[in-house]
Amino acid sequence: MSDTRRGFFITLEGADGCGKSTQARLLAEWLRSRGLDVVHTFEPGGTALGRELRRLLLGDGAEVAPAAELLLMAADRAQHVAEVIRPALGRGAVVVSERYVDSSIVYQGAGLGIPEPDIRAVNAVATEGLMPDVTIFLDLDPAHAFAKEAGGPDRIEGRGLAFQREVWAGYHRLLAQEPGRIVRVPVAGRTLEDVHAEVRQVVAARMEAAS
Amino acid sequence: MSDTRRGFFITLEGADGCGKSTQARLLAEWLRSRGLDVVHTFEPGGTALGRELRRLLLGDGAEVAPAAELLLMAADRAQHVAEVIRPALGRGAVVVSERYVDSSIVYQGAGLGIPEPDIRAVNAVATEGLMPDVTIFLDLDPAHAFAKEAGGPDRIEGRGLAFQREVWAGYHRLLAQEPGRIVRVPVAGRTLEDVHAEVRQVVAARMEAAS
Repeated sequence: MSDTRRGFFITLEGADGCGKSTQARLLAEWLRSRGLDVVHTFEPGGTALGRELRRLLLGDGAEVAPAAELLLMAADRAQHVAEVIRPALGRGAVVVSERYVDSSIVYQGAGLGIPEPDIRAVNAVATEGLMPDVTIFLDLDPAHAFAKEAGGPDRIEGRGLAFQREVWAGYHRLLAQEPGRIVRVPVAGRTLEDVHAEVRQVVAARMEAAS
Repeated sequence: MSDTRRGFFITLEGADGCGKSTQARLLAEWLRSRGLDVVHTFEPGGTALGRELRRLLLGDGAEVAPAAELLLMAADRAQHVAEVIRPALGRGAVVVSERYVDSSIVYQGAGLGIPEPDIRAVNAVATEGLMPDVTIFLDLDPAHAFAKEAGGPDRIEGRGLAFQREVWAGYHRLLAQEPGRIVRVPVAGRTLEDVHAEVRQVVAARMEAAS
């Protein structure tokens, strides 16, 4: 892969309600304003197949066993990598994805108790080893995140505050494991613009260092 | 698992058109006639979630990347194991499944070129290591199998004769690797009843040996 890859791959991570979508949009707009080719995408559901899987995963239809949830998320990711992320990186674009492998490690691992080596093994197949150049962890305490959510919770959000606390702790463990790739940006009590300015600064520095 | 498992797990494998469904039905009927609790099931699509996945996998809708196909098949299997196979084995039933892990190794490996270690790693997560007590490989040359098929081919069958030959060769490689678990039963030129009699004999001997 490394020989054909020329773009830059950024992921945004964090608990539900931390502002990933807004920050991804602001970041993508800023990168475009600098004249870059930018692909703003998300998981689960960033492809036609993925939208069907997202419906199965987040809907209240069929029961989904924990290992099946892990594998469906990974299938969504495999399709997303093959159809969207690799082609964009291959032509030199900047890819901004809301969620990626870290979400699986945290949600299916910390949340559902699937062993981390299993999650990593499945995701290594899904991504063929493609990891982000930089990951922004938007850190918002789960109690804050819940208060911010509009509308009813989906199937995964509906797992409650204890689950969200495990997710939050899971992100902090990942941050400790991979401080070189993951950068924490605190969110509580700050304006969107303030958070965006910090995200921009982190990304600019990483892209500069990589160029 | 081994401490909670009391049933007997049989899988039927083979190329499209080899008669798996008919032989599975005849086998299940015979086992029931002996007073056993029998669950006759199949992959992909043996659960409510699986039926949705089967539609995605075999339909002509969204494009499916090879790694995504592998992971969707494994998700279907994980749900099938959790919802159908393990509960049945746990209560002491005989499970007869049309297709299982071997199908993934053969179809996604021999057919799509995904490395076998990747397929085995993903499936180990999906099944939590549960393998059949015996696997019947219904061996029919792909040219015969194609001639027998009624109706138009689905997305996977539509890959053509070269693909079916790779599948066939893949099953023969598996047979060579695991002669203790997999038993080959030739199908070409034989009646259903004749094949059924041999399947019955193999299963009876294995159940006898395991009891």
